[in-house]
Amino acid sequence: MSNFGRSTVRISPEAFPEAVLFDVFGTVVDWRSGIARAVEARLTSYRSGIDGYAIADQWRGLYQPSMEAVRSGKRPWTILDVLHRESLDEVLAKNDLRAVTDADRQWLVNAWHRLPPWPDVSVGLMRLKAKYIIGPLSNGNVGLLTRMGKNVGLPWDVILGAEVARAYKPLPEAYRAAARALNLAPERVMLVAAHNSDLAAARREGLLTGYVERPNEYGPGKPGSQPESEPWDVVSPNFDALATALGA
Amino acid sequence: MSNFGRSTVRISPEAFPEAVLFDVFGTVVDWRSGIARAVEARLTSYRSGIDGYAIADQWRGLYQPSMEAVRSGKRPWTILDVLHRESLDEVLAKNDLRAVTDADRQWLVNAWHRLPPWPDVSVGLMRLKAKYIIGPLSNGNVGLLTRMGKNVGLPWDVILGAEVARAYKPLPEAYRAAARALNLAPERVMLVAAHNSDLAAARREGLLTGYVERPNEYGPGKPGSQPESEPWDVVSPNFDALATALGA
Repeated sequence: MSNFGRSTVRISPEAFPEAVLFDVFGTVVDWRSGIARAVEARLTSYRSGIDGYAIADQWRGLYQPSMEAVRSGKRPWTILDVLHRESLDEVLAKNDLRAVTDADRQWLVNAWHRLPPWPDVSVGLMRLKAKYIIGPLSNGNVGLLTRMGKNVGLPWDVILGAEVARAYKPLPEAYRAAARALNLAPERVMLVAAHNSDLAAARREGLLTGYVERPNEYGPGKPGSQPESEPWDVVSPNFDALATALGA
Repeated sequence: MSNFGRSTVRISPEAFPEAVLFDVFGTVVDWRSGIARAVEARLTSYRSGIDGYAIADQWRGLYQPSMEAVRSGKRPWTILDVLHRESLDEVLAKNDLRAVTDADRQWLVNAWHRLPPWPDVSVGLMRLKAKYIIGPLSNGNVGLLTRMGKNVGLPWDVILGAEVARAYKPLPEAYRAAARALNLAPERVMLVAAHNSDLAAARREGLLTGYVERPNEYGPGKPGSQPESEPWDVVSPNFDALATALGA
């Protein structure tokens, strides 16, 4: 274990991976600010006093339950764009916003395709890309992640969306399928995430783990990233420091 | 129908696609020169008089038969890296090269991950990327295509390798799955290829078609691209002209 700049590194350079894959929502992009701004921009004409952050939180609150219905087999494979639309319909109904048009609902679903990256992401990813295969390992669908990459400038080498495995994280197959798609043994792949549960599931499948703090994921003053629950292989305050820690 | 620069364009700008996907071997990269050079570099130490081009042609000659065993269901899903290795073993045995080590064989299989693009490709793809989602729609596996993209600088937005469909072109599912992965109707996707048979299969599934001539795919003086067998939506002499034709 060494401190490398502001990172903690618990693996030796010989054990560094060939591919570095990233959780996206919360880790790469600030979904809460992006959705709050989109909601306020689009829904203020329907009624005054729209709290974009409150609606963003309610919408995101339905994220895990909507995927759980797929994970458990209660419903067939369904991509995140579709789950996002169903969850939005539910949130709008609860917030006295039933009048929102279909076109505006679709526009809001597509706001998940253009979420702002955290400020350290662009530089960090460009540095990591010079040494590693980089890509999302996300529950987002391939179309969502491809458009997000173009819209906000994420220089991915490959898009490993949920359809690669047709399984939502943290199911084991989601991690295994990503390594397999790159013809890599799990230990040649690192997952980077701001969430302990995601990293714990990745580690159980043999992947390396990189933890990046995102204290503001749920807003200033709210609990953000939790302290690391296990000694992850690399712990960094941001992507720039992560690139330094991984020799990129 | 209009002549746009040196291209023929048979669709109006309103019908232009959202994604432009590319056949890779022969259309984007010059597999024959790349493999010939790799073979000569690696095998000359085994015996003198190695003809890299002859071995490249024999190796590529086993490409369609090897995939046909998968297409027909005679063998389970097998990625191209594995098929390439089996075909190479066969070619080496026939060419008095049984002594080639496993490491050298693997190095040669990986030569398919670093094939040289045709000279017009880099500029053309960068221009197209500014307006369209671009990616390979290839029988190569995702790992092969991802590494090739990094090794030779192909600025793909998304990698749609054969595992997306688990079906080899020209089976219909290969084209359908690519459009589905991007949440696009088939007519919102264009396949660009130097091969009439690939385009014909794509058109049957509803994709737009772009034909680019590659007269030297099989070497100077050999029959290369065949004349267009159907009136494809766009016909261009190279990727730069294709970008102009598509308004990019």
